[in-house]
Amino acid sequence: MPRMITSDRSDKNNKHRIVVALGGNALGENLPEQMAAVKITAKAVADLIEEGYSVAIAHGNGPQVGMIQEAFGLLTREDPERYVQVPLSVCVALSQGYIGYDIQNALREELLNRGIEEGVVSVLTQVEVNPEDPAFKTPEKPIGHFMTREEADKLVRERNYVVHEDSGRGFRRVVASPKPETVVEKEIIKTLLDTEHVVICCGGGGIPVIRAGVNHLKGAAAVIDKDLASGCLAEEVGADTLMILTAVDRVSINFGKPDEKKLDLMTVSESETYMDEGQFAPGSMLPKVQAAVNFVKGHPERTALIAKLQDAVEAVRGNTGTRIIA
Amino acid sequence: MPRMITSDRSDKNNKHRIVVALGGNALGENLPEQMAAVKITAKAVADLIEEGYSVAIAHGNGPQVGMIQEAFGLLTREDPERYVQVPLSVCVALSQGYIGYDIQNALREELLNRGIEEGVVSVLTQVEVNPEDPAFKTPEKPIGHFMTREEADKLVRERNYVVHEDSGRGFRRVVASPKPETVVEKEIIKTLLDTEHVVICCGGGGIPVIRAGVNHLKGAAAVIDKDLASGCLAEEVGADTLMILTAVDRVSINFGKPDEKKLDLMTVSESETYMDEGQFAPGSMLPKVQAAVNFVKGHPERTALIAKLQDAVEAVRGNTGTRIIA
Repeated sequence: MPRMITSDRSDKNNKHRIVVALGGNALGENLPEQMAAVKITAKAVADLIEEGYSVAIAHGNGPQVGMIQEAFGLLTREDPERYVQVPLSVCVALSQGYIGYDIQNALREELLNRGIEEGVVSVLTQVEVNPEDPAFKTPEKPIGHFMTREEADKLVRERNYVVHEDSGRGFRRVVASPKPETVVEKEIIKTLLDTEHVVICCGGGGIPVIRAGVNHLKGAAAVIDKDLASGCLAEEVGADTLMILTAVDRVSINFGKPDEKKLDLMTVSESETYMDEGQFAPGSMLPKVQAAVNFVKGHPERTALIAKLQDAVEAVRGNTGTRIIA
Repeated sequence: MPRMITSDRSDKNNKHRIVVALGGNALGENLPEQMAAVKITAKAVADLIEEGYSVAIAHGNGPQVGMIQEAFGLLTREDPERYVQVPLSVCVALSQGYIGYDIQNALREELLNRGIEEGVVSVLTQVEVNPEDPAFKTPEKPIGHFMTREEADKLVRERNYVVHEDSGRGFRRVVASPKPETVVEKEIIKTLLDTEHVVICCGGGGIPVIRAGVNHLKGAAAVIDKDLASGCLAEEVGADTLMILTAVDRVSINFGKPDEKKLDLMTVSESETYMDEGQFAPGSMLPKVQAAVNFVKGHPERTALIAKLQDAVEAVRGNTGTRIIA
């Protein structure tokens, strides 16, 4: 396949700008898993930088934000006079510190090992959502670890959690996942990209906030889908490529069936047809394809890629992954 | 008193640059207290920006990092197969997300309410310490909440915590507090200050890291004193003023005695004499005075101020607080 050339270099430092969305599940369920995972991430991102890209990294936090809320839930139950329950928005902020530090630390090291001078910075990011978003009424975003039916029933009974069965892998708590409207810190992120930094931002899809009054942003009880937030970020910082990294090397139709077909390329209209057919699992491949479509629709100069984490640089070269174009 | 004029404008945007150090205790022991406290902080910082300063904010995290470690300790004990104990360095990273988000959110609103356009950004910050620092052998930095003797004895017995009695206010856990050597993200923080941003950084004194190999930075089991970290930051980003905000309006000698004397001005040599006399409480006023002395010693163009949070702008005007000069 030919090396992909996009015609529009939108950022000031004259590099192609890419937003890389990294799965929260890919970061592992606990700290040792995360520390191993970020090393792979660091290599993938460093490859992109060597390839000449200016990179912003957004990451998920599904398992991590669940763990954080569980920890603070235990604290509140142990000492209810001293500690109130920590809201989900604050748990997302905590997860940005938890995950951002590890990515930043590993990426700084990988870049220095390769003699690359770009600074790495993690920016706490708020993302605005609409308080009228229907998602607030129908929680669907899984967070935390997988549970047995018995464990799930207990949390539903004792703590009013909403719990769904997740793709046959067990039960998980679900929370509201409203659509991202705008990244509050977008100008800062642009400035940092313009000045040759690698920026880690929109962690966990961003800290969800709703506008309450003219200038007040209030934390919302939600977790924003990181793929949709990454698409919003890519749009707002003038990226030409949105790359969603995951555990599989390509998007498939008829996934898991005898006639499963891996796709190298999807147009927006093909993607929309597949989505209408229910080809992609909600909370898994569906938001990735949706984010890709949102980003490239009406923009022939843009590319969205869905690829395997380790294949990042081969995917931008056009050698693997699924490319979604207008 | 005359309005203070410093002669050296060291930053590129031609504003006086100030590093403001904010006490972790001033942020409260739980979330409602913190949300109230950051509003006062936001006003104080907005006053400084209106006065023409370029501002970096560093903050403590004593109560917060203790709370975070307690929460994750409970999680590890409840589910030891899934979760390992979260190291103190990662707890500091979590606290940067927890506190940084609240300050950033409140300050953004306060600035917009005043029609000020500067962007507010929280940057996850690592601070390098020396692995040979003697502090690793003698933990002295209090974290977490105050405890009774019985509660303290239990933690010493059951979890090998080191616990000290703290200024007659009860018992607190203490951890190693090595000296900050350098702020890893200093160039990024400078870039953001140069481009007219208010930067929240070095939260909790920074995530403590030690150099392990050429480029690897490893988290350290420590919490760096935020006053000393702020001084280090002020030095490295070319600030002309270091302002340490606290609960009292001035530094006192003979504190709490009939002949207590509040000081408007201290030279480095006077400060050193008072420190030798044991005038300042370790873990409280002592690191503030030490950080001030470190910053101004040999630098007649610099000023350090120790003042009450609400008095920030009056202190830079020379109307209150204690000024420490070379």
